[in-house]
Amino acid sequence: MQFAHTRHVVRAALPLVAVLVTAPMANSQPSEQEKHTVSDVWQTLPTRAESPANNPTTAEKVELGKQLFFDPRLSLTGTVSCNTCHNLMEGGDDGRPSSMGIHGRIGPRNAPTVWNSVFQTSQFWDGRAPDLEEQAKGPVIAGPEMGMPNHDKAIERVAAIPGYRSAFATVFGDDDSVTIDNAVKAIAAFERTLITPNSAYDRYVDGDRSALSASQVRGMQLFESAGCTECHSGPAFNGWTPGLTDASFEEFPRFSNRRFLDKYALAKDLGRYEVTKQPEDKHQFKVPVLRNITLTAPYFHNGAVESLAEAVRVMADVQLDMELAEREVTDIVNFMGALEGEFPNITLPRIPSRSGHSILEDQDPAATN
Amino acid sequence: MQFAHTRHVVRAALPLVAVLVTAPMANSQPSEQEKHTVSDVWQTLPTRAESPANNPTTAEKVELGKQLFFDPRLSLTGTVSCNTCHNLMEGGDDGRPSSMGIHGRIGPRNAPTVWNSVFQTSQFWDGRAPDLEEQAKGPVIAGPEMGMPNHDKAIERVAAIPGYRSAFATVFGDDDSVTIDNAVKAIAAFERTLITPNSAYDRYVDGDRSALSASQVRGMQLFESAGCTECHSGPAFNGWTPGLTDASFEEFPRFSNRRFLDKYALAKDLGRYEVTKQPEDKHQFKVPVLRNITLTAPYFHNGAVESLAEAVRVMADVQLDMELAEREVTDIVNFMGALEGEFPNITLPRIPSRSGHSILEDQDPAATN
Repeated sequence: MQFAHTRHVVRAALPLVAVLVTAPMANSQPSEQEKHTVSDVWQTLPTRAESPANNPTTAEKVELGKQLFFDPRLSLTGTVSCNTCHNLMEGGDDGRPSSMGIHGRIGPRNAPTVWNSVFQTSQFWDGRAPDLEEQAKGPVIAGPEMGMPNHDKAIERVAAIPGYRSAFATVFGDDDSVTIDNAVKAIAAFERTLITPNSAYDRYVDGDRSALSASQVRGMQLFESAGCTECHSGPAFNGWTPGLTDASFEEFPRFSNRRFLDKYALAKDLGRYEVTKQPEDKHQFKVPVLRNITLTAPYFHNGAVESLAEAVRVMADVQLDMELAEREVTDIVNFMGALEGEFPNITLPRIPSRSGHSILEDQDPAATN
Repeated sequence: MQFAHTRHVVRAALPLVAVLVTAPMANSQPSEQEKHTVSDVWQTLPTRAESPANNPTTAEKVELGKQLFFDPRLSLTGTVSCNTCHNLMEGGDDGRPSSMGIHGRIGPRNAPTVWNSVFQTSQFWDGRAPDLEEQAKGPVIAGPEMGMPNHDKAIERVAAIPGYRSAFATVFGDDDSVTIDNAVKAIAAFERTLITPNSAYDRYVDGDRSALSASQVRGMQLFESAGCTECHSGPAFNGWTPGLTDASFEEFPRFSNRRFLDKYALAKDLGRYEVTKQPEDKHQFKVPVLRNITLTAPYFHNGAVESLAEAVRVMADVQLDMELAEREVTDIVNFMGALEGEFPNITLPRIPSRSGHSILEDQDPAATN
């Protein structure tokens, strides 16, 4: 999809939701009419995600997936787990411009959040993985991430740990069930539980008009009227429509020769083109989830922008050819704050024991001193 | 303490506990007489630890300490938390010969377990920190670990996070309470909760004669008769006597020109001498806790020994001048397995949010690409 907004057109959309500005902030349930003023653009986050037919979610599988997700022994040096770059204790990312993997190596792109990643229409910034299962295979063997030479070596490591052998047998059956395909199924099953519903925004959309501040309501209106929702639509603000699985990519940056392009090197990465080598995919990126966006600074595929306020300025400029007043930036940032959801309580897993044996025999000799 | 065991002397101690070998394995409670056969050498682990007068444990302090313990933002690159090298999901260590910190840098010694570290008589292999509070200051500013240039910079980072400012104020009072001294007090308070009681060994000592296998009982007896308990004594097997705070150091290796010295470079590290520069401290090391030792391979201050069985062989050789039969090694290893305790359930903390701002502005330029 490509939209050719102008400042004039998007401003004209404002009256659609303007009634919200003067809506009373009260704890009482809103009338049907008051509800109606929240347009269909706004949707609450599902509290659970469907599992695919070939990987049904079970409690045992989720628990195994949690162990694997937190287990740094899946990396060559025993130092990097999925959680290292997708830290569930905060934004589901690592707070870095791009991630630091084994041996201090640095990856090419900013780590996307794993929170609500089940609602992504594809995985990675360039959408090269169709689902969570396929995504989980990538970092394990990526040189600057977990750095295993191949999946066989990673699975050898897992299969050498007695507790994993029995857990895989319980979840997937007895016969040679410690496989990379089963490992990523378990990880994906765990990730499907990583949903943060019931944000202030969700409560507002559900009718609680006291859930957002006046500034947040202004930011919400502006987010729609300025055209942000043309791409950042749906319950996860990433173009995903519940029930559909269409991948949602957009050109970024759309407007060139703008003041932020050079400053933040926004046009350097060719995005999806690097995967497909199709000219029309140049600078196409997956539309990222905006849920919990306040928790995932720095911003963009290259993590070059340090604050959310600046990210909002940049998006207005390079995507909508629009300069926002500082008060408008503040309102949108405040609205983004309303997208912080409720995080599930997660009990730290006990990862299966080494049972008196080192499991790092095969590590890169450079890792030992 | 120095003990001059000979093979003859230690073997002679065997009859002291030999009655255990023929003790019946039954589920019924043992008689007083049966209880008595477990000598006073064997002590159960306390289920809680006292807090020092200047750092009383409170629930809020423990929670703040947990957040700090798991927060990688205390490291220069945002990638290394206390938990990275002291992983509470397994042995309270990192499974590496020596730890890998920021930029893939590698430290000089094996990471000791944080489980039951409150029962250490001093902290670090060379005992250079008297308590957990002092220990926690070290890694934050150690170049190969968390790599902050100094404590002020680390505290600046913490104080920039709104949620930490309010948590410190709640725990320590309002006025400039975000300090390194308060941060390590909170971390130490959390660490004082990291106790793993009720192992099979503890249940056995408490009278449940079915808690250990015959091989484990043989290992337990041999562990005493061979002289291991001369240093690895008390409830944590580290020389600590409840109620006393004397630091317990021992010479390692004691016997030179032995077959394992060169193989594992055991005499290279001068231990406590590096701290005190006193000749009598050469090769003196803190006696490590043996609780959960099956979870912390590889072994020794340099992590050079990959399996617990080999570690037992090495200890017999270089500390007791003794060669064990393989069956004896197996028995002792099995006994060590009985020291795996019950791990408390820990809920993953929510670490305070960046609130739409990167907190890595001050990071080492080498950390970004």
